[in-house]
Amino acid sequence: MISRVLSAELAEHAGRRVTIAGWVHRRRHLKSVSFLVVRDRAGLAQVVHGHPGPARTAGDHTGNHTGGYAESHVESHVEGAPAAGGGLPGEESVVRVTGTVTLQPQAPGGVELTEPEIEVLAEPGTPPPFDLYRPVVPASLPTILDHAPVALRHPRLRAPLEISAASVAGFREALDRLGFTEIHTPKIVGSATESGANVFGIDYFGRPAYLAQSPQFYKQAMVGVFERVYEVGPVFRAEPHDTVRHLAQYTSLDAELGFVTDHRDVMAVLRQAVAGMIESVRHRAAPAVGLLGVALPEVPAEIPAVHFTEAQRLTSSDEPDLAPAQERWLSEWALREHGSEFLFVTGYPMAKRPFYTHPDPARPGYSNGFDLLFRGLELVTGGQRLHRYEDYTAALAARGEPAAAYEGYLQAFRYGMPPHGGFALGLERWTARLTGAANIRETTAFPRDLHRLSP
Amino acid sequence: MISRVLSAELAEHAGRRVTIAGWVHRRRHLKSVSFLVVRDRAGLAQVVHGHPGPARTAGDHTGNHTGGYAESHVESHVEGAPAAGGGLPGEESVVRVTGTVTLQPQAPGGVELTEPEIEVLAEPGTPPPFDLYRPVVPASLPTILDHAPVALRHPRLRAPLEISAASVAGFREALDRLGFTEIHTPKIVGSATESGANVFGIDYFGRPAYLAQSPQFYKQAMVGVFERVYEVGPVFRAEPHDTVRHLAQYTSLDAELGFVTDHRDVMAVLRQAVAGMIESVRHRAAPAVGLLGVALPEVPAEIPAVHFTEAQRLTSSDEPDLAPAQERWLSEWALREHGSEFLFVTGYPMAKRPFYTHPDPARPGYSNGFDLLFRGLELVTGGQRLHRYEDYTAALAARGEPAAAYEGYLQAFRYGMPPHGGFALGLERWTARLTGAANIRETTAFPRDLHRLSP
Repeated sequence: MISRVLSAELAEHAGRRVTIAGWVHRRRHLKSVSFLVVRDRAGLAQVVHGHPGPARTAGDHTGNHTGGYAESHVESHVEGAPAAGGGLPGEESVVRVTGTVTLQPQAPGGVELTEPEIEVLAEPGTPPPFDLYRPVVPASLPTILDHAPVALRHPRLRAPLEISAASVAGFREALDRLGFTEIHTPKIVGSATESGANVFGIDYFGRPAYLAQSPQFYKQAMVGVFERVYEVGPVFRAEPHDTVRHLAQYTSLDAELGFVTDHRDVMAVLRQAVAGMIESVRHRAAPAVGLLGVALPEVPAEIPAVHFTEAQRLTSSDEPDLAPAQERWLSEWALREHGSEFLFVTGYPMAKRPFYTHPDPARPGYSNGFDLLFRGLELVTGGQRLHRYEDYTAALAARGEPAAAYEGYLQAFRYGMPPHGGFALGLERWTARLTGAANIRETTAFPRDLHRLSP
Repeated sequence: MISRVLSAELAEHAGRRVTIAGWVHRRRHLKSVSFLVVRDRAGLAQVVHGHPGPARTAGDHTGNHTGGYAESHVESHVEGAPAAGGGLPGEESVVRVTGTVTLQPQAPGGVELTEPEIEVLAEPGTPPPFDLYRPVVPASLPTILDHAPVALRHPRLRAPLEISAASVAGFREALDRLGFTEIHTPKIVGSATESGANVFGIDYFGRPAYLAQSPQFYKQAMVGVFERVYEVGPVFRAEPHDTVRHLAQYTSLDAELGFVTDHRDVMAVLRQAVAGMIESVRHRAAPAVGLLGVALPEVPAEIPAVHFTEAQRLTSSDEPDLAPAQERWLSEWALREHGSEFLFVTGYPMAKRPFYTHPDPARPGYSNGFDLLFRGLELVTGGQRLHRYEDYTAALAARGEPAAAYEGYLQAFRYGMPPHGGFALGLERWTARLTGAANIRETTAFPRDLHRLSP
């Protein structure tokens, strides 16, 4: 391994000669001195070349040095004064720099490398399509997405992906603690059953097949095996609408558990999962949270819940589903009344839920299904499922669906299944809500949509 | 949540009245007493109904009670003596049983539940297609796979999935410790570039697209962002051969890291990942390991490595690749000479490796690529990759491939990429090697192959 210390560790080596490696984030020349800002996976490091006087820095920057990428606005005070090459490698060159770690309160992390020896490991053939060192990338979202491999190097653009990775780690950790087992299920399925619409067709060895829209049927079957299962994996929706909220492929965090009393047990597990995700983001993605100024929500010990009929009453509606404006209103209401950024809406009408939804035994027109609203949007859908074979055949018959198409699915229920339920949370939607991203495409490295199939 | 204790925790409650829940694994009637063996996610529990004398048990079983599912042969001594219903729920009924935890050295875990109250939560409509309580499922693999949702309830059939889940957790843990970031990449790609053959075609909003055969290009691009990345996700191969080693969808454990000196740095990280997987299996899947009698391998501090030319010499071959018999011979040789069940073969000829492989600077006909052999089979392929744009265009030109088809891929290299490399490990192949499964279909819940598209 190329022997090096990370930028974030430099301060621990003050006075010593060390080697760092990374990309040239910014190159600048002043009269008698040149600066390189080197970017590595941990943050930024300043390298000084030449014989500077006592009172100069690369960006004359002030304010707190919180480490990480907080100093990516290093150049903001010298706008309009770019300098030519002068022998130092240009932006996005890959370099290894050996230098003396010297205290410099105004540099990122409070230290800089002086008396540097610079070795270029790789030279970019082309300058970046936009300046990666600016605080915000000066390009439109389509341009950014077209250049994702280089654009994502920008600290603000990679930050949502760090938050996303930390969220998934927290999800798994929380469920592992609760005795869940991770599963991997087929993404190629033989029939387009779950919703019928919006599926991608595949040529499967000459036979028609489809990309799975969710692991719903498989995770339910696996409750019969492990009782408690989760899967983190891609799901596919041939979504024909071009919106800021939909992707053709997204990462679904799915969980399903058996031996529940009803949907409230599922909600309690979901609450644990969400709390674990937030805690993980707080600890694992602190620099990204700081850089984006994300306000992490508190997860109440018990997330407030309103029944669908109560939600209707509160919003003076008699529609069988909640419109986006109502979801926003309810979220604000929950914050006002309960001090919670999360709100469960339970008991959605059966007619609006999938056939495998368990009805509320006390009010059969309403379901034991729920949504979790977060900051004005539906984030998670879940509920208790039917668990008796005869309930499935009756539910399918009532909807005029042929039971034969569901034979593989129904098999699990022929052989004894416990009361169970589960939920699905879209990772990109979660990250978008958390970071305030205006477009879900900012929360995944290489989005797929109606128009976009590369890079 | 249905209030209950797990079977494996019963012994902690001796003398108390507790509730368990699970599936009726086995129902038996003797003259004056009936037994239920109840299966839950943690193991088996014996329930006694009636007024037994002092010297009887359900299976009169002897030997160590190691907990978990080790006692799934509970009935092996009473073969040929099945009894009729008699009021107790039948096999695969879902039950909740409240009873007194009573010491019984011959029962699983050393305790049984007496004076039971039994509540049936769900009754199977159909008896299982084969007896799940037998030590080995009395059915052919195709029959088992056709009935996966119920077959996987058998402790021996679910055990590989537990080992698989523990392996993935260990993989992530090891790489998290090394500063890797988890990524999620597109499974739908615009061109069938990586190998050209064996890809599944998709109708993508009326345009042709393909299922990704690997995250290779994306994980390399993400080295430019996070330096060190991994992905655990499905990959797809339209494998037209019906073998015991190939699946049309499998789970690939992919890692890629930057700032390497050469492939040996990648091998060192792979060694850590494999050691983490083994340790995780040892700790998280102990009952499954015990039940299947898996001998977990030692992972040497440094896994022995031979150069391809040396491997040729050892096996008296001059073929440009290793045949299965040679791989087996080399594995035996490594065990004999180095006491290692793992062996790296390095320096495969460039002609046999993908175009993105980095050549050995000292011997350009050979590569900085490697395979990891484990118990006679290639388990992992990896190596150092090219990192300079001009090396890519030259490598593609030399192979007569149009650079235009790789434009999205090559983009990352235009803008400065560090020396890097990585590897891919097939989860199902790993689990099969570890458990000694004869067919890779035994290591995944719902395999997909040339013929199988359900359940």
